[in-house]
Amino acid sequence: MKPGEGIRDPRDAVIALDDGDAVRPEAYGRRAADLARLTALGLPVPPGVALSFDCTAALGEGGPMPVVPLPDRLFALRASPAERSWGGASALLNLGAGAASLDRLTGRIGAAAALRLHLGAVSGFGQLVHGIDAESFDILAKRAFAADTDAAALARVHRAMLALFEDEAGQPWPEDPAAQLEAAARAMARRWNAPSARLLRQAHGAPDSAGLGLVVQQMALALGPGASGAGHLQLVDSRTGAGSAAGGFRPQRQRADAGKAGNVGQGGLEGLPEKTRDALAAAVRRATIGLGDAVRIDFVVEDGRPAIVDVAPARRSGRAAVKIVVDLANVGAIGRDEALLRIEPRSLVEHLHPQIDPAAPRDVFGTGVGASPGAATGRIAFSSEAAQAAAAQEEATILVRPETTPEDIRGMHVARGVLTMRGGMTSHAAVIARGLGLPCVVGVGDLRLDPAAGTLTSADGRVFHEGALVTIDGTRGQVLAGAPATIAPELGGAFSELLDWADAVRDLGVRANADTPAEARMARDFAVDGLGLCRTEHMFFEAERITVMREMILADTDAERQAALDQLLPMQRGDFVELFEIMHGLPVTIRLLDPPLHEFLPQEEEGLRALAEAMAIPVAQVSARARALAEVNPMLGMRGVRLGVTMPAIYEMQARAIFEAAITVNRRAVAPVVPEVMIPLVSAYREVELVKARIDAVAAAVQHEQGVALPYRLGVMVETPRAALRAGDLAASTAFLSFGTNDLTQMTYGLSRDDAGRFMREYVNRGVFHEDPFHSLDVEGVGELILIAARRGRERNPDIVLGLCGEHGGDPPSVRFCKVAGLDYVSCSPFRVPIARLAAAQASLLAKGREGGGSA
Amino acid sequence: MKPGEGIRDPRDAVIALDDGDAVRPEAYGRRAADLARLTALGLPVPPGVALSFDCTAALGEGGPMPVVPLPDRLFALRASPAERSWGGASALLNLGAGAASLDRLTGRIGAAAALRLHLGAVSGFGQLVHGIDAESFDILAKRAFAADTDAAALARVHRAMLALFEDEAGQPWPEDPAAQLEAAARAMARRWNAPSARLLRQAHGAPDSAGLGLVVQQMALALGPGASGAGHLQLVDSRTGAGSAAGGFRPQRQRADAGKAGNVGQGGLEGLPEKTRDALAAAVRRATIGLGDAVRIDFVVEDGRPAIVDVAPARRSGRAAVKIVVDLANVGAIGRDEALLRIEPRSLVEHLHPQIDPAAPRDVFGTGVGASPGAATGRIAFSSEAAQAAAAQEEATILVRPETTPEDIRGMHVARGVLTMRGGMTSHAAVIARGLGLPCVVGVGDLRLDPAAGTLTSADGRVFHEGALVTIDGTRGQVLAGAPATIAPELGGAFSELLDWADAVRDLGVRANADTPAEARMARDFAVDGLGLCRTEHMFFEAERITVMREMILADTDAERQAALDQLLPMQRGDFVELFEIMHGLPVTIRLLDPPLHEFLPQEEEGLRALAEAMAIPVAQVSARARALAEVNPMLGMRGVRLGVTMPAIYEMQARAIFEAAITVNRRAVAPVVPEVMIPLVSAYREVELVKARIDAVAAAVQHEQGVALPYRLGVMVETPRAALRAGDLAASTAFLSFGTNDLTQMTYGLSRDDAGRFMREYVNRGVFHEDPFHSLDVEGVGELILIAARRGRERNPDIVLGLCGEHGGDPPSVRFCKVAGLDYVSCSPFRVPIARLAAAQASLLAKGREGGGSA
Repeated sequence: MKPGEGIRDPRDAVIALDDGDAVRPEAYGRRAADLARLTALGLPVPPGVALSFDCTAALGEGGPMPVVPLPDRLFALRASPAERSWGGASALLNLGAGAASLDRLTGRIGAAAALRLHLGAVSGFGQLVHGIDAESFDILAKRAFAADTDAAALARVHRAMLALFEDEAGQPWPEDPAAQLEAAARAMARRWNAPSARLLRQAHGAPDSAGLGLVVQQMALALGPGASGAGHLQLVDSRTGAGSAAGGFRPQRQRADAGKAGNVGQGGLEGLPEKTRDALAAAVRRATIGLGDAVRIDFVVEDGRPAIVDVAPARRSGRAAVKIVVDLANVGAIGRDEALLRIEPRSLVEHLHPQIDPAAPRDVFGTGVGASPGAATGRIAFSSEAAQAAAAQEEATILVRPETTPEDIRGMHVARGVLTMRGGMTSHAAVIARGLGLPCVVGVGDLRLDPAAGTLTSADGRVFHEGALVTIDGTRGQVLAGAPATIAPELGGAFSELLDWADAVRDLGVRANADTPAEARMARDFAVDGLGLCRTEHMFFEAERITVMREMILADTDAERQAALDQLLPMQRGDFVELFEIMHGLPVTIRLLDPPLHEFLPQEEEGLRALAEAMAIPVAQVSARARALAEVNPMLGMRGVRLGVTMPAIYEMQARAIFEAAITVNRRAVAPVVPEVMIPLVSAYREVELVKARIDAVAAAVQHEQGVALPYRLGVMVETPRAALRAGDLAASTAFLSFGTNDLTQMTYGLSRDDAGRFMREYVNRGVFHEDPFHSLDVEGVGELILIAARRGRERNPDIVLGLCGEHGGDPPSVRFCKVAGLDYVSCSPFRVPIARLAAAQASLLAKGREGGGSA
Repeated sequence: MKPGEGIRDPRDAVIALDDGDAVRPEAYGRRAADLARLTALGLPVPPGVALSFDCTAALGEGGPMPVVPLPDRLFALRASPAERSWGGASALLNLGAGAASLDRLTGRIGAAAALRLHLGAVSGFGQLVHGIDAESFDILAKRAFAADTDAAALARVHRAMLALFEDEAGQPWPEDPAAQLEAAARAMARRWNAPSARLLRQAHGAPDSAGLGLVVQQMALALGPGASGAGHLQLVDSRTGAGSAAGGFRPQRQRADAGKAGNVGQGGLEGLPEKTRDALAAAVRRATIGLGDAVRIDFVVEDGRPAIVDVAPARRSGRAAVKIVVDLANVGAIGRDEALLRIEPRSLVEHLHPQIDPAAPRDVFGTGVGASPGAATGRIAFSSEAAQAAAAQEEATILVRPETTPEDIRGMHVARGVLTMRGGMTSHAAVIARGLGLPCVVGVGDLRLDPAAGTLTSADGRVFHEGALVTIDGTRGQVLAGAPATIAPELGGAFSELLDWADAVRDLGVRANADTPAEARMARDFAVDGLGLCRTEHMFFEAERITVMREMILADTDAERQAALDQLLPMQRGDFVELFEIMHGLPVTIRLLDPPLHEFLPQEEEGLRALAEAMAIPVAQVSARARALAEVNPMLGMRGVRLGVTMPAIYEMQARAIFEAAITVNRRAVAPVVPEVMIPLVSAYREVELVKARIDAVAAAVQHEQGVALPYRLGVMVETPRAALRAGDLAASTAFLSFGTNDLTQMTYGLSRDDAGRFMREYVNRGVFHEDPFHSLDVEGVGELILIAARRGRERNPDIVLGLCGEHGGDPPSVRFCKVAGLDYVSCSPFRVPIARLAAAQASLLAKGREGGGSA
């Protein structure tokens, strides 16, 4: 079957499948290349040739048909794009069928089987090439089915079908195999160019220019004497990735009907002789090593002799994918770098949280945004108080709120999951829940919450009361009644092995955003390089502290304010001691107070009244103060360093707490702490200068009082566009710049995270934004500001450390961007750390230009 | 007195005052240069020399004293910095005084006068050189005063003073005139270097390196026989700039006591012979032409002979300054370019609004931010309704509100002035008031408004009720009781002549921001080049429209919404017809709807209830909708093009109204309208693409319906940092980009205008921001974004028109920046147009490198 001899032009229009590596996937498609590889491995692949992308493209435009040496049996035509997911017409079998082949095959496999093959040929060819409706063939197909093995009846059906073909196609059945092939190849080429096919494959990432290869392959006959039929086989469990044979076999059929992978056959391979089964299993094993991936093969058995007609990667869950690549690397089938590059980092979340068992029935009664992944089951609690009461009795709850505020933090800490009616991916509930690793669904527009009545009502009128058992699926954004079966997290084994390999490869640091000891411990469990963002404000919301904090805010005089701060100092110091001890010498970046003060005041009349009582001042005074502090655009108001400049006592207290805590820990511990103090929301250099002077003074005072030296590092959070533009100034006198990309995105777009939910979905769907810029860093806008800032910062201070803290730190494309931008680390919520570690490793590998091969 | 002969080194340490232009102000100071110029004009300036900056600097550090040829009379030493406002020690008179001079002078002017001169010498020298307290000389000065013309008594005082000097100075009186000069010169040099002096002059814009020249000048003797004494004279009215002699003369005194300019003498020149007076007036006229400015001279008359001892620009109000330079240019004393460069554009506001007469007594009871200049008197109205009721009776009111909302617009339209308790320069009240040219004071923290009680209470307990007569001074930010006298605006004469010259010079367009026909007419009166920003939303607040607008917002279905829009269409079309007619073919840029929809809903319970009644729907439904539309950060929310993308029917209605109006006007008018449609709050190119497609479609439909062609221009408002960064994309398919620097500043800084008031003053005072970035464009941050955008925009589309609309369009430094950035026009509120026209002219002149000279 070789089309020619001697050294071939690498752009040969036609190449034989036994030409090995010359059958390149980028010229002939993935299917052709894989079949050639299996052929080279000595596996029983029926002989055939592949037509190149260029050749098919020319055929689609009426170009000449190359000479294809045809076998003297029936043959199949299969699509072979560069990536399997890009589609192409399904295989056309039984080409070459005609009067001559009918005679020949009748002799070999009997008239009935031969006629069946020819019936299939006419129907398939008619549909593909002449666009004849499948339904036109229905009656004849039913008659064929009824005829069973009655050759005479089948022959009548065959004649009727040829007549039907002639009617519909306007021409008699083409007896010439070469003419059949040419017509079929042109039809497949045209179909590839149809707009719908184009759109479909572009949705799978295909470029505009994606080409189609074609495989012309001699058929093994699945119909006939002995053990004949079609089947498929793989040797891994699609759910877990563990070794486990799964497959199916259907005797006297041309296709394994469970052909859509995923439903890996229940039927098993019972119909096959043991020798055949063993040969097939051996073939899968050799294909796995040879192709460097766990595969599923489609095979045909002809009188007991297996033939591999197709091969594809075995379907796999996220967890299975990790197990598979780690096993492949450990047996040397692929290198560790390749293993790292094969895993989509985001899929690692499947390891981190319980998931609803894919096999379990789902009684979904509400749908929203999956804001924090994983499944959680519990009884509905409509308030933080209810959640805490239930927690006291060790009852699992799902906290259900219109939206959450800082006052709900305690409720969130004890709940198993959080469900809010409003909000998007970056609402308060979503951010906190991700930090806590707590499953969370937000923005459930089709549920109605009536807190007064204590009811949650679905669109179809189902009413759930407090205490009702529900499950939320934070991965898919669903709310389910009852308690479906779940699968537990899996953090050991292949998962941790892969991440160890990632750490050996990456040169981008991965830190965590953690505000509490619990979160810091989580971060340690995920093997972070430090804490990149510790938001001190969350520390103030604990019951005994919020009152002191409020006294500080409502203080009328500097003395009163200082008295409150003096009470807060030991509490903050205690927090930091604990954090430093947990992090055991790893860097800890503490952000000074950031939110506007009104966030710490009660939101409702009732709370204000209670506060006034507690402070023994008139409620009118408290209300007036709350009103005076209220802001039109809190995001752009009196917060961050603006507090530090205008009310310096707060930052001084925090700095003192940090330095005293570090000295305390350094006296006890082996690994010394070098605390990092970060100034938020800077927009002008002078803000840094003023705050730095005061912090340096506090440091000097504390060191003097304690009689020890304490190195520390002062840095600036770059989260306004102006800070990015002025990064040169900011870097000159500081140790690090950390890009706060949540706020930087808000300000670059002029878009509030809290308010964007209303139209973000529509914006992304309509392609106004390629992606939600709060999920994946906007490289063209925000990214340019980061590049400008990084360049200017390094120019002025070559030692400056550059980091990113924010949601984007756990988004793989954003992490890759950070590597390209030359950042030193990213910092993300603890549960995103594994994703970031893998993404950082991939970024390093990609930067090395995919040198590939094992690094072990 | 010439120190040498031949060609002099231009850096001579000592130069004679009769060396003309060689006495350069940048080497010897302004006073020396001006006196040399008057000498060259042949005016009677006593002879003398000047010491250079370098020489004085060396003296201050103990360097050598150059040889100064001394006259055989007494002489004076005067400071001569490069700019008069930079200060320096006051003149030291009567140097050279000693036993020998006493003898000589006694012979010429009598013993008593001679002794008085010598007493002055010892006191002045003692204070300056030896730092002796002025008070130490007090008793002796009183004895001298009592001695009157008793020479013997004066001689005793003189002896006592010499003794006192020796006691305090630790050395006898230095008889050598050269020694006196050296000591005095060194003392003046040291004083120039004192930190306090340095700070003081830096506040007036002096650079760190500012030098001091010294003038050593023979004295004319003001004491003695005949008409002798000191005085000053100028020939312009300091308040109006009109020709009018003003001066004073004090016989037998060495200094004209009204020496501090401004209090130009009431006394007149009665003590002088007419010939002397005429000579002095002629001298002022020659000096005016020679120095190219209206001057005031200080003179001494010695026995009827006048001597000019000092010359300085005549003090002048903002209005006077314009009259003076226009007169100077018209007589050819200076060129028109020079006249344009001499006027601080901001001072033009004095022409535009009534001002409180500087002479009137001020009963100030509250102080805030002067948000819109001018004085207004009226009776207090605590609500828009009250203001409208009063207006119906033609009663002037001052609208007094906690802060204003769009619902107050009607009240603002009828009030004479606006006073709000809260807000800053860019609050709603401030922005609207400036647009209306309405005096406005905001953020009056020391007044307490109790709307329920109907009282406004001052910090010291004065209570003002509705109807009380008050005056606000929007220039100075004061609230006054009663009705002080005011000065009327003055827009003709020199003011309009100067602006005509400005228009001939400038190449930067000046447009106005105008939303209503009234504002558009104002803009035409100020001779604008077009409207750069017409905000359509203000058109919706009129009584009959707001209800329809609210129906549109609360519509449940697209059909309901369209019905409301169909009602709004003819209203908007009518607005635009009127605007286009007023602007008579000048460009009109109409911004499509920008604010979030909730701004159009009533703010309070009561209003919601009324709305529900009017629409015959449950109040709960209205409230729920209002709540659903509420935003956490409205500035960063669902507004601008985000409305256009998600609710396209609104923009379509507006586009139709614009195009239909333009065609209507074009059918009638001579000058054809080319409407400019502007899309607000863009952050991504695709937003423009989507909106542009719809607007182009509307345009095509309207043109088809009307059967005429209508050219129009579509542009984008660049007001998010991302739009600035992506300006290349945005410019590719649009006709203009207009920088909305109000919002761009907010987003670049992460700073809400509405909320910044709380700390902006502190930030500016402490130098955190050099200036309020909402007043004067932040060149380093926002400015860089504009430069980036302008460059990228022009690269992609060389024909793109670039403009700026916003508060900064009326700020002179910002206007200069726009010229440098290569923008085509600025657009500001109508009352800032004159400022912008002059600033634009100055920018062009500065760009030409101050070629100077007359352009007439």
